Amino acid sequence: MDFKIVDGGTITTPKGFKAQGVYAGIKRKRNDLGILYSTNPANAAGVYTLNVVQAAPLKLTKESILKSKQLQALVVNSGNANACTGVEGDKNARKMQELVATGLDIPNELVGVASTGVIGQQLPMDCVEKGIEMALADLSENGGPAFSESILTTDLIEKNIAVQVEIAGNTVSIAGSAKGSGMIHPNMATMLGFITTDAGIEHEVLQKLLATATDQTFNMITVDGDTSTNDMVVVMANGQSGVNIDESHPEWNKFVSAFTHVSEYLAKAIARDGEGATKLIEVTVTNGASFEEAAMIAKSVIGSSLVKSAIFGADANWGRIVAAAGYSGAQFNPDKIDVYLMGTLIFQNGMGVDFDEEAVQARMQEELIPIEINLHQGEAQARAWGCDLTYDYVRINASYRT
Amino acid sequence: MDFKIVDGGTITTPKGFKAQGVYAGIKRKRNDLGILYSTNPANAAGVYTLNVVQAAPLKLTKESILKSKQLQALVVNSGNANACTGVEGDKNARKMQELVATGLDIPNELVGVASTGVIGQQLPMDCVEKGIEMALADLSENGGPAFSESILTTDLIEKNIAVQVEIAGNTVSIAGSAKGSGMIHPNMATMLGFITTDAGIEHEVLQKLLATATDQTFNMITVDGDTSTNDMVVVMANGQSGVNIDESHPEWNKFVSAFTHVSEYLAKAIARDGEGATKLIEVTVTNGASFEEAAMIAKSVIGSSLVKSAIFGADANWGRIVAAAGYSGAQFNPDKIDVYLMGTLIFQNGMGVDFDEEAVQARMQEELIPIEINLHQGEAQARAWGCDLTYDYVRINASYRT
Repeated sequence: MDFKIVDGGTITTPKGFKAQGVYAGIKRKRNDLGILYSTNPANAAGVYTLNVVQAAPLKLTKESILKSKQLQALVVNSGNANACTGVEGDKNARKMQELVATGLDIPNELVGVASTGVIGQQLPMDCVEKGIEMALADLSENGGPAFSESILTTDLIEKNIAVQVEIAGNTVSIAGSAKGSGMIHPNMATMLGFITTDAGIEHEVLQKLLATATDQTFNMITVDGDTSTNDMVVVMANGQSGVNIDESHPEWNKFVSAFTHVSEYLAKAIARDGEGATKLIEVTVTNGASFEEAAMIAKSVIGSSLVKSAIFGADANWGRIVAAAGYSGAQFNPDKIDVYLMGTLIFQNGMGVDFDEEAVQARMQEELIPIEINLHQGEAQARAWGCDLTYDYVRINASYRT
Repeated sequence: MDFKIVDGGTITTPKGFKAQGVYAGIKRKRNDLGILYSTNPANAAGVYTLNVVQAAPLKLTKESILKSKQLQALVVNSGNANACTGVEGDKNARKMQELVATGLDIPNELVGVASTGVIGQQLPMDCVEKGIEMALADLSENGGPAFSESILTTDLIEKNIAVQVEIAGNTVSIAGSAKGSGMIHPNMATMLGFITTDAGIEHEVLQKLLATATDQTFNMITVDGDTSTNDMVVVMANGQSGVNIDESHPEWNKFVSAFTHVSEYLAKAIARDGEGATKLIEVTVTNGASFEEAAMIAKSVIGSSLVKSAIFGADANWGRIVAAAGYSGAQFNPDKIDVYLMGTLIFQNGMGVDFDEEAVQARMQEELIPIEINLHQGEAQARAWGCDLTYDYVRINASYRT
């Protein structure tokens, strides 16, 4: 590992970032509005949900980054997704952008907006306005924890990470905060990710880096296969470390590893914190013909309700794993693959292997469930993360919105 | 409706078909081996799972129909899927074929073989051999119910239907029997469908008819999105009604309607009998640009764990329905669609509609939950069926194989 993890690091660990989270009254009892701010305009990039139904703030943020290639601030509310809210919803997202821009005396298009929460209800704009005022008044280098709390809906755990990497003798920091899918109330949006760095990176390079890292991390997690109207990951790179970097830099790969680690940490934290989840499942597909095919298989296994239920029940059920790989759409010969569960070989030569089922079952009580599928086709590898399917998932999602 | 449903009809309702189901001892207490027989060789066609992991009997049946274009008998066992069983599994499937062929004094390739049950265990061939002997000795025009019982794993309900249609003054019968996805033990295969008719139809025409009907019916159901290693639908047309028919026949469409009804009835019966299901969900997508896109949307909604959980909880949750349509991969403008639940308009112009939520919620206690999405794009329509996601699904699938 060419980088170090910053103990207690948050999204404000990189130089020049401030944040705050406050209770604005959009939802019942927790912080529900956060602002992230860079003291100078930062180059920015974003990746967004592929759902054709897209929330107003998501469309606005996408449009703003396309236009300015930069962001200097992000405002995020939880408790209300501002999705399927029509013309009034668009107006409210723009109002949030404008309030923050005016407060910070910066152009509107330098402010990103994100929302997560109930779909189909209008934002209580009086609360939002008051919250923005409060958060702006209190922006601080110590505001990371409050910010990360404010973006949660009913996630159980705040998701923060910061790493530092030495580039050309200077320390560069990369940090992130995310909101996952622990949704007690139905109709909640799923995933928001925010990444900051004090490296200097051009918009196009940053966009490419974010897209690649997202494909390997955020796009490799599944809680229930449902893609929300509000999913987005946004990165801001403000250059305050004094280090400028791109693909031609000799230490680019080192930087990419650190950046990808931040994404992967957040993605795994989201999967682990899935609704009703008791276990983190990690499926690694090795020696595939291509990343795409390996990824299809990994995601198919992680998304199988039968596999997820079996793991909840600590059942070393290779039949379901092999069947889910088989319907992924990727081509492979089932007679040539090896499947490992908890590190134990359980399937080979097209058949189950004699293994100590009781021992494996006992070890499946652990919180991390690794599954490995070796395709023996080529050299590509893909990894996906998910969680088990539990009674609590059904309970959480079947309960009426009250 | 240009056809009539035969009261108490079964797979032996069409002329010249006999069947039997017996208890061979493959599984604990119920009939577990069935044989279907036509007194003359019948033209045959089949559709099979797209899973790259395919069970031995499925591969053998596919190969046999490709070779002979006909079948005269089908042998089916439940309790053991003969999947992921290697060379011995292939040998056992061939042995089943041979035992039936020898018993009936017909060529091997006129016998189809299907298995459903636990994956990864070898068939108890002594039981199978005894069962085949017993069933052959007792083939009868009254054996339909016993046959349909013998193909179930832990489905709750036998699935039988027969219809009759008048073609050129003659009565033609079409019938079917199916096995769905009520699986108490994990690792069970999912869907088997068998259709018989006494119409005379050439192999190529029959194959095309079956493929089209399957795309509109069996391929439009989802219990949990998992596609098994053993799924197949096979049709036998023995011509004993004296009516030969193909696309050029003036009454072809009438025949197709009756045939499709048989498929649809069985498909819906499978969805309704899904694991732990308490409700049948029917999603109709109307006025789409193409059948393919309409079908993508219908299947995406029916497959959403969030939608399925909401319906279990009688939650009129349009946000989840719209979001699931949105990530289907089909293109549409969410501002232009109308969504109906239980016949009530709940979403229009990109927003929720004011509706009597309490009344709709009360009606969601009913067993059939219709959802309609009008895309206002074109003239294509697709319909998909599924079931709710319940505590019992998790209980059934998390329980260890014992």
